[in-house]
This record gives sequence, structure tokens and C-alpha cells, in this order.
Amino acid sequence: MAEKHELGITVKKADDMPEWYSQVVVKSGLADYSPVRGTMIIRPYGYRIWENIQSYFNDVLKKRNVENAYFPMFIPESFFKKEAEHAAGFKAEVAWVEQKEGDGERYALRPTSETIMYDSYAKWIRSWRDLPLRINQWCNIVRWEVKDVKMFLRSREFLWQEGHCVYETKKECDKETKLFLKEYQKLSENMLAIPVIAGRKTEKEKFSGALYTLTIEALMPDGKALQMGTSHNLGQGFAKAFNIKYVGKDEKEHDVWQSSWGFSTRLIGSIVLMHGDDKGLVLPPKIAPNKAVIVPILFEETREKVLAKAKEIAKKLKKYDALVDERDEYTPGFKFNEWELKGVPIRIEIGPKDLENNSVILVRRDNGEKKTVKIDNIAKEIKQTLNDIQKSLFDKAKKFLDSHVAEVDSYEQLKQETAKGNMAVANHCGSVECEEEIKTDTNGITTRAVMPGKAEGSCIKCGKKAEYKVYFARNY
Amino acid sequence: MAEKHELGITVKKADDMPEWYSQVVVKSGLADYSPVRGTMIIRPYGYRIWENIQSYFNDVLKKRNVENAYFPMFIPESFFKKEAEHAAGFKAEVAWVEQKEGDGERYALRPTSETIMYDSYAKWIRSWRDLPLRINQWCNIVRWEVKDVKMFLRSREFLWQEGHCVYETKKECDKETKLFLKEYQKLSENMLAIPVIAGRKTEKEKFSGALYTLTIEALMPDGKALQMGTSHNLGQGFAKAFNIKYVGKDEKEHDVWQSSWGFSTRLIGSIVLMHGDDKGLVLPPKIAPNKAVIVPILFEETREKVLAKAKEIAKKLKKYDALVDERDEYTPGFKFNEWELKGVPIRIEIGPKDLENNSVILVRRDNGEKKTVKIDNIAKEIKQTLNDIQKSLFDKAKKFLDSHVAEVDSYEQLKQETAKGNMAVANHCGSVECEEEIKTDTNGITTRAVMPGKAEGSCIKCGKKAEYKVYFARNY
Repeated sequence: MAEKHELGITVKKADDMPEWYSQVVVKSGLADYSPVRGTMIIRPYGYRIWENIQSYFNDVLKKRNVENAYFPMFIPESFFKKEAEHAAGFKAEVAWVEQKEGDGERYALRPTSETIMYDSYAKWIRSWRDLPLRINQWCNIVRWEVKDVKMFLRSREFLWQEGHCVYETKKECDKETKLFLKEYQKLSENMLAIPVIAGRKTEKEKFSGALYTLTIEALMPDGKALQMGTSHNLGQGFAKAFNIKYVGKDEKEHDVWQSSWGFSTRLIGSIVLMHGDDKGLVLPPKIAPNKAVIVPILFEETREKVLAKAKEIAKKLKKYDALVDERDEYTPGFKFNEWELKGVPIRIEIGPKDLENNSVILVRRDNGEKKTVKIDNIAKEIKQTLNDIQKSLFDKAKKFLDSHVAEVDSYEQLKQETAKGNMAVANHCGSVECEEEIKTDTNGITTRAVMPGKAEGSCIKCGKKAEYKVYFARNY
Repeated sequence: MAEKHELGITVKKADDMPEWYSQVVVKSGLADYSPVRGTMIIRPYGYRIWENIQSYFNDVLKKRNVENAYFPMFIPESFFKKEAEHAAGFKAEVAWVEQKEGDGERYALRPTSETIMYDSYAKWIRSWRDLPLRINQWCNIVRWEVKDVKMFLRSREFLWQEGHCVYETKKECDKETKLFLKEYQKLSENMLAIPVIAGRKTEKEKFSGALYTLTIEALMPDGKALQMGTSHNLGQGFAKAFNIKYVGKDEKEHDVWQSSWGFSTRLIGSIVLMHGDDKGLVLPPKIAPNKAVIVPILFEETREKVLAKAKEIAKKLKKYDALVDERDEYTPGFKFNEWELKGVPIRIEIGPKDLENNSVILVRRDNGEKKTVKIDNIAKEIKQTLNDIQKSLFDKAKKFLDSHVAEVDSYEQLKQETAKGNMAVANHCGSVECEEEIKTDTNGITTRAVMPGKAEGSCIKCGKKAEYKVYFARNY
């Protein structure tokens, strides 16, 4: 019993989500605290989810003709100064390497890689034949402003992918900026079972140095929005700053158009927050490291037989990375709790009686449903059930999102709705200062994404003519 | 013609290997120079080789029950001080983060991750049930001592994998230290077609903090040895320094036994050096990003037909990532040169006459052999030819290695043989000082690996009783 207590989650999700979240992340083995302030350790169970995301997205990259590469993590100080807005945006969060004799200049640890990559792009790109150029890198990123780590969600070092593309025309650049956002949306909705709102960021919230930023935003159960990925049309600002030109088919020199886009290990945090429950993690089958776990019910006399059958089943379910938990030192009940905590989508129970009936019991992690299934049909049943779980997690999250977006007509209403844990859709004038005022006044409500189209009426805050409708929320 | 000149390698491998090497790496598109001193950019073509190595080795890790994880790249200064030998070994090459208010302590950028990982191991390991623990990470590593980059071979930042295992007993630890070295040998010989000498490092050359180090060493065509991977039995030094204990089945507390092992992106450099020729890269099929390239010979009248057939063939050879080079702006001759430079194992030529005969011409990159092959048989022929190339590259390299190891009886002979580009096998007393003297006196000859067994006779340098026979060479 002592063991169980230590293992299990001691607070309810609805009562104290931050504490619940930390406990789930650590106790399920996704990650751990690190001795270095503001950082975390991604443990094997968490890293396998990241690998599953990588594997899915590497296929997307290949399909979209994006190639992986690796650039230095050190960025010369002078590079930041070339694009003024970009430099200003990252100033506070940059960590620097202690200078040594002969270094010549100060180096930052990459907070993002536009500058170091585009310096090379200027060298590599000569003519229209070199375009489009599409390069991605998977790497670690350092943003030092973080003091206290929020596992996966905010840390001084995290892992991500960053795609950096170059085009001849604005039209192509617009098209693919949208395309990669769409790919992010598919990743989030189809793999992670997290529905999102897709839209443009306001001037205030866009990426430092971008023409515009597209974003996908999810709404977490506590009513906070979580930015799942962004795709930036960088325009020609970096092209001018880094002198990236190409000779066109017209034999004249032109500045290139550029885009960049990224998502990070914070996606893992979003999965925990969105789907987890009071028993722990609930993993969408498509990214779960193990889609099923087999817990044999072992008694001395039937032990051998039951275990042999459990292993036989595991073999049949190899492509689902099904595990057999044959540890002797724990009771079945203890094991059930542990695998629930780890969010394995399906538990398969098999005891001597089941063996006699040539059946097993399937238990769904997401809703606890139990079902007796013939062993002969097991592969088919598992496949179907995994599909059902994936769909059911998405549907539940979609229902949540749809029922937590409120159109509001006044500033007062905006505060009320966000206080209730809703996203508020409201008219806004589009001014950076006005948005800033809302954020300060409400202690953290920000715009998440602009709705397409023009708005009628006036800004809920300043009363000036509305430019657009925009989603407001607190955010991670 | 101007284009060809710029593209091609302008020096012969035998005449100026360093210059030849740099040209091949840059012009083939494997990597490029970076604006940050001592660092390099791994371009997509080079990165794909790294991904192929990763993919192969991730399967090995899975088979050996090693799990991937990710630890912070920042290592507290105090951690280095815990294991004195380890700290001394890395002192000169560590880069530090500029301290900011509230950091508390100085952080190094990981030159290797023993200390940061073992701090967590101490927390995670409680009893024999937690052992063995086997964790690997793929990450970037920083060693600042490098001033001038040698692409892939020596740079301030590089990519590697580092495995860190924990065992109950010395016996298990010995066994698996050897096991992972064996896996490295297989990777090198079976995938990269580079034969190696496997053995133990001397006291002087072992890893800082290890009980002993095992190594695989290849001999490059210029007579320099290249360390391809190392596997360390760390003994119990780190266990004591980081207080990693487990309660055994005997219910008593014990210090654990540990090992670590790693290889890096320098493997890509070894492929270039070992197999490349005056035309450029020669890639072993098993790690080549594209195993074949199809160059259609296009004339106006037959263009459509020939191109259609080329694409049909590419489809058949999809699993070999066969490319069709349909660029109009270059001649076939130019294309042949370019794909030779890039080391693609097989070139497939198809023109209108070939089409009439329902055949193509296969050209082997490694030896230039041409062969006419029926299109119906192409998949089978490609498979066979790729196997032949892989084997032939290994055999050639093995012959080179075998014919460049010389047993020597005197210090004079040792100097003569190494000057001729051979590895020298000689008696040595085993003393660190004596080895140091040889290195200083010869301006860089070091021991690479100890031969198993005891030696008869006396040390070639100091004349004292020989402890073992050992391989001497200059090295990368």
C-alpha cells in the first residue's frame, strides 16, 4: 500500500492542475527534474513519444521535399544585429558563451537559427535553379529567461524542429507558410488527438522579424491556450539583412522570400494536459510507445501456461509494441495502477479462467471499458479498439474546445469568459498598444489567433473601429 | 567547362590528402565551413549519412535493451570536481556559459555527459531490480580546444551518441563493455566497409575516469589511425563520486559498476578518407543516401519516351532511393562527373538505343566497370551489384590495413615504419611517461590499441621489461 501511494497521483486534475501535471510527468516516467535550474531531463518514456512524433514528421518532410541538416549552435553576436526586430525580440533570453582568447567575438547559444542558417543560404543560393530551398533541423534550443522549469512547457533548453525555406516569390512563400501550418494541424489533430484553432498572429504576437506568423492554438482543460506550432512568412527582411539574392529567369537579381516554422517538445506537455486524468497519463494510441500491456494473472499451478500464452499474444501484437508485465514482486492490482499511470491505451488481462475460455479481457485506458475477447480475434480487436480510442480522445477534446469558445461583446464579458476558462472571441482594433493594455490590465490575457475576414463594429477595449475578430485567452 | 572545373576536385588524393579531403567534403555537399571558428555545417547530403547510421544503430540499441533519453547540455561546475581524473582530462576543452544573476553556479557545455547523467542515476537506482540500466542519448557535444575545423574529424561542436550503462557486477560490466565495442566493429566493418583493429587503450590513452577503455581503430590511406569508437568500463569511480548505490539481493548496499561508449559524426570523415578517390566521394552502398542515380540521355525526338522509362525504372528501384537526373541545363557528361563526385554507388545510363534494346548501362562508382543489363532484370542486378560494391570496398580496405601493419623490434624501425605510413606493432613497458616521451620525441606518434596477451622481451624505447605489444601510429 505504501508503494501504491508513492506511485499514484495524490491530487485531482480539477483541484490543482499544476501540481497534478508535475506529478503525472514525473511519476509516469516521462521526465524528471534536473540539477540545473530551469532545465529538465527527458526520460526514455518521454523520449519515445518524441521519437514517434519525429518519425511521423520526417515522413511529412520527405513528402514535402524538405531535407534535414545541422548548423552550429553558436551564433556570432554580430549576426543578431543584422535584423533589428529579430535581435530585439530575443535579447532578453539569449545565453552567451564565456569568451576565450582568440574567439574574436561573442557567441550566443541558438535561441532559434534564422541568422546562422541564412548566412550560409546567402552563399549557397545563386540562381532560380537553387530555389526553392527547404531545410529543416532537429536540435536543442536555449532560452535563458526561464527561471523555474515547467516540464516540457517552459525550460531553458528544449528540443524542436525548425524548417527554413527560401522561395522566388511571395506567392510561393505564402502558399507554403500555410502548407506547413496545415501539416502541424494534422500532426496535432490526427496524431496527438488535440484539436486546434488555426489563424494568424496579431502584430504584437508575431515572430520577431516576420512579415506575419500563422499559429495553431489548443485550449487546455484549465482554460489556458497552448501554442502548438507556428509558421512564419519572413518576407524579405532577412534576405536584405543577410544579402540573400538570386538571379531569376529574367536574368536580374532579386531578394528571396523566406519562411520558417517550428514545433517543440512542448507538444508532449500538451498531450499530458489535454488527455490525462486523475489516474495519470492517457496516451493517444498513435504516439503511445506501447499501445498495449499484457498483465498475466499468475498462480503457482497455472503460471507457466498463462505466461506462455501472454507471450504468444505479445508476439501477435508486436507491431503495437505490446509488453508482458511478468514481474513477480508486484500484484496485478499494483500493475494495473502503474500502467494506467503510464497511460498505455489498452490493458490485456489474462488468467487461468480466461485461458480455459481461450479469451482475454481488454480494458480501455481512456474510459475504463472492459470487454471479453477471443484470443483468435485479438489482433483485429486491438486494431479496432486503438482506432476507437484515438477517435474518442479527439472527439472529447473537440467537444471541449467547441464548448469553450465564447463570442463576447464587451471588455467586461471578455474578462468574465476567460475567468470561466473559455477562449473569448472579440472585436479588436489591431493596435499593439491596445493589446498591450489588455494584457497588463488583465494580468496576462493575450490574443492567440486572428479570425479570417474583417470585423464589423468597434474594439471591445478602446472603442475604435474594429480591424478583426480575435481569440483571447491566457496561455502557457 | 568552367562549371566542370569548379565542381571537380583539383588535387589528387595521393598528392595532398588534407586539401583533397576538404574539397571532397565541401564540393560533394556533405558539409560546409561555418562563420563560427572551429565549427562546421552538416549539409543535407552529409546529414542523411548520419541518419542512416542512426537508423542502423537505433535498431542495435533496441536489440540490446538500451533506451534513448535526453539530458541537459549544461553541466554544473561542481559536478566536474566530483571525479578528479575526469575533471582533469576535460579541463582544457570545456566551454562555459556566461553567468547571469541567479544562476548560482557556472555551467559548462557538455564535453561528455557522465556527470550530469550519473547525478540522476543516483536518484533513480534503488535496488537490483533497477539494474541493469542502459540509456543512450544522441546529442551535440562541445569541445572548445579546437581552433581550426577539420570537417567531421575535429570541430568545436559535433554530434554523437553516448551510451551509459549501470550493472550490479564487474563481470556484467566487462561483458557489455566488450559487447558494445563489438557492435561498433560491426557498424564500421559491415556498414561503412572500414575494417578496424579492436583492442584496449593504454593507461595514457584511456578515457579520463575510466578503469579501462576499449577502442576500434581504422588506418586511413595516409597512414594515420582514426579512432572510430570507444567503450569504457568506468569501474566504480563515478559510482563513488556520485553516490550511486543499489540494495542487492543480499539486502546489502553496493556501489554499482558502470560503462559508457560513444561514436560521433567523425565516422562520416572516415568514410570520405578511406574510400574516396580523385573523382570524389565513394560511398558504401549500405550508408549511401541514394544507392543509384539514373542519367537519361535526352534528345529532342526521344526525350519523352526515355524519360518515362527512366522514371519507371526509378520507381522499381524506390527502395534504393534511386534518383532521375532530368535537368536540362547540364550535359550527361557533366552529370556523370557530379554524381561521381557525390559518390553514388551505381550510375544507370539510358538513351534511345538502350530503350530499343530494352536495356540500360550500369556503371560502378568504385571501379568504373560498365555492364549492359536488361531492364527486366534491373532490380536483381542492382541488388547484386550493390552487394558486390559493399564487399569490394571492404576487401580493398582490409587488404590495405593488413599490408600496412609492421612488427618492429626497435625504436628506429618504429619511426621508419610509421614514416612509411604503416602502423607499427612494438613491445612496450606500459609506462605512461615512456609513452609520453615517444609522442614528444616523434612529434605525435601515439599508441592506438594494446594487443591481447603478454609480451616477451623489452620495451623498444626504454629497454625495460615489455608489458605488452601495442599498435603505434600517428592519428587524426
